[in-house]
Amino acid sequence: MRMYDLILKKRNGGKLTKEEIDFFVNGVTDKTIEPYHTSALMMATYFQGMDEEETLNLTLAMASSGEQMDLSVIDGVKVDKHSTGGVGDKTSLAVVPIVAACGVKVAKMSGRGLGHTGGTIDKLESIKGFQTSVEPEKFFDIVNTHGLCIAGQSMNLAPADKELYALRDVTATVDDISLIASSIMSKKLASGSDCILLDVKVGSGAFMKNYEDAENLAREMVKIGNGAGRKTVAVITDMDVPLGNAIGNSIEVIEAVETLKGNGPEDFTLLTKILSAEILKMAGIENAEEKVEEAISSGKALEKLASMVSAQGGDENYIYDTSLFEKAKFTREIKAECDGFISHMNAETVGVACAKLGAGREKKGDDIDFTAGIMLSKKTGDKVSSGEVIARIYASDESRFSSAEETFLSAVEYSEEEPEKRSLIMGKII
Amino acid sequence: MRMYDLILKKRNGGKLTKEEIDFFVNGVTDKTIEPYHTSALMMATYFQGMDEEETLNLTLAMASSGEQMDLSVIDGVKVDKHSTGGVGDKTSLAVVPIVAACGVKVAKMSGRGLGHTGGTIDKLESIKGFQTSVEPEKFFDIVNTHGLCIAGQSMNLAPADKELYALRDVTATVDDISLIASSIMSKKLASGSDCILLDVKVGSGAFMKNYEDAENLAREMVKIGNGAGRKTVAVITDMDVPLGNAIGNSIEVIEAVETLKGNGPEDFTLLTKILSAEILKMAGIENAEEKVEEAISSGKALEKLASMVSAQGGDENYIYDTSLFEKAKFTREIKAECDGFISHMNAETVGVACAKLGAGREKKGDDIDFTAGIMLSKKTGDKVSSGEVIARIYASDESRFSSAEETFLSAVEYSEEEPEKRSLIMGKII
Repeated sequence: MRMYDLILKKRNGGKLTKEEIDFFVNGVTDKTIEPYHTSALMMATYFQGMDEEETLNLTLAMASSGEQMDLSVIDGVKVDKHSTGGVGDKTSLAVVPIVAACGVKVAKMSGRGLGHTGGTIDKLESIKGFQTSVEPEKFFDIVNTHGLCIAGQSMNLAPADKELYALRDVTATVDDISLIASSIMSKKLASGSDCILLDVKVGSGAFMKNYEDAENLAREMVKIGNGAGRKTVAVITDMDVPLGNAIGNSIEVIEAVETLKGNGPEDFTLLTKILSAEILKMAGIENAEEKVEEAISSGKALEKLASMVSAQGGDENYIYDTSLFEKAKFTREIKAECDGFISHMNAETVGVACAKLGAGREKKGDDIDFTAGIMLSKKTGDKVSSGEVIARIYASDESRFSSAEETFLSAVEYSEEEPEKRSLIMGKII
Repeated sequence: MRMYDLILKKRNGGKLTKEEIDFFVNGVTDKTIEPYHTSALMMATYFQGMDEEETLNLTLAMASSGEQMDLSVIDGVKVDKHSTGGVGDKTSLAVVPIVAACGVKVAKMSGRGLGHTGGTIDKLESIKGFQTSVEPEKFFDIVNTHGLCIAGQSMNLAPADKELYALRDVTATVDDISLIASSIMSKKLASGSDCILLDVKVGSGAFMKNYEDAENLAREMVKIGNGAGRKTVAVITDMDVPLGNAIGNSIEVIEAVETLKGNGPEDFTLLTKILSAEILKMAGIENAEEKVEEAISSGKALEKLASMVSAQGGDENYIYDTSLFEKAKFTREIKAECDGFISHMNAETVGVACAKLGAGREKKGDDIDFTAGIMLSKKTGDKVSSGEVIARIYASDESRFSSAEETFLSAVEYSEEEPEKRSLIMGKII
């Protein structure tokens, strides 16, 4: 088999067989395929696409290109949740404890933040002592004992995807729906859960800027998941404006904790409950919505979070008393520049402003400041008066404020008329 | 400037600026651009194309990526001729002496054969003593003194094209008209002639299998040549059947010599005269057709060839007495397999059969046998009886016959009805 023939076939609109895709993915993994062959094939695929079978085969080949989590040592139904990423998206921090409180086990691998989006792992590390690097055996043990664990990727999951993504990233072939779907799902399949809930974000802060693209991505991922024998559901949700009010690391953990106490912001609370209920339904649990309400009102979800924190070496007192979180040295108020309604608040730009405050990283390996961030007091659709505080920004270094404020303000648009409201839940693909 | 941005722009159907193309070609030449970037850009170009200005800029950048012939030391109008390649195509061997005999100087760089096509340089080397490796100074001197010189490429002409072509060849992006045109013309421009005559072949033995592709290629190349300030004309000619009767090395030289003596095969004689007259017209010479006839009938063209052979170290007696050429040790007759007409003779397959006899090379650097080859006595359109000799094959090694004969016979198709005749001259682009 020769890469030349695969490239020519795809270039001419042909369909790659399972054997050809396996040959390609194996060659990418063991680096026997030249990167110029790979980039030519990816560009040809960008133009000619891949059908459902090809996409599934590519995903399966990448999922099995490295280590695979074997969750069979954990009893019961194991679920995983994945968000395509956004700004202020601390959903996992609330959803995972809720579903665990309802008896559904979550063995979740999460990532770090990059660019304008944060990462669950970074957020959790703002809790004193919390360990995100957990050996597989301990990971299984924590899930079996407490029902939940959120750890960083310590295993070599889907290395072919890592190689392929890095090359696509520098050769302008990232934004292809099939390839994105395959990349995300290869890691999810390798992570071993029985059920996968996908939160596909759409809007200014999401990778997918319009609904149609988000729906296509959701459909592709659900097809792959189900095709691979995992129960998979995708919910398409709004990410045109930051989710909740807190954007940062420790302040997002605090907001998630407040939500588990029943005091969360309206949009974030709603999304948390809906995603939690979807997971319970996938796991075959009846009266899912009621169970979610009960997990919160009874304090059981909060307890689950505290027990996970404790099991992963963190100080659980932080969960019960969020005043323990370290505070930023400096704070500044950001004020509305005119009277009227906030007609748009570009979530990506807000994310960039937050990174400028020190809460995010430009490149992998950069240090981040857990205390930095943005707390919104007004969001899209809110009425404001000129000079009214619309947000507070936090940093450990005062010199970061000027550029961050300028960026934040550039994200905000005003109108005289009240803008039309976007739905938080935009669609569901099963 | 970043390759990523060039790839993205081209992928999205954008137009590359002169600066971007120069950046790319310079990076290919000095190898600072990663091959995976280049192959992604080439594949994006395959799908999105390049417009006239981009193609011209690419060609100019490649033409100036290495050494360039400065023909200003040669007096008068200098012309070049290029064939896109075929089987039995010894046209340069006859055309160059004819136009030189008419006072138009030809400083021609030629190549070696590969695969099913022969090369002018190989053919000339079948003349005892003939040197195809000629230093630039001597090359200019021979053209100034004798009016003609045909040498191998000793200079580092268009190295960017060499790099780019090698990569396109292994990543399935060779068959793009703009890129082919640019590749050919970059070398022609670097070769320095004032006028360029292009013989674009079409049919079973040519790179372009159908007329439309050949015409598109011809148009692209003529646009580039004229855009670069060189007078450029393309003639589109048939290569569905081998040109002339001789296919090989020494036997092609002999056929060219016979043609200059007025005894050549009809098709090859016609093409030689037409291309010669075109060149004379480009050089501003009146009554071109008459002058061509005169150059042949007077024996002046033959003398020019003999003087070039002598100037390049060869034995000119070979030109006046072709019986001096070494003969193949073995010969075999190939006979018609049925009664009827030869309805098709696949030129590429005949070329492959010829290579199997030892006349061609599979890969660069292979030795070739100057005496091996095929002499056709029947061609497409001829009436044959079963058992009648349609060709004679020659080799130095008898064991080569069986496979070569089988291949040759597979190239020949028969019909009861006389097939429609194809025109030798199919079009002209100015």
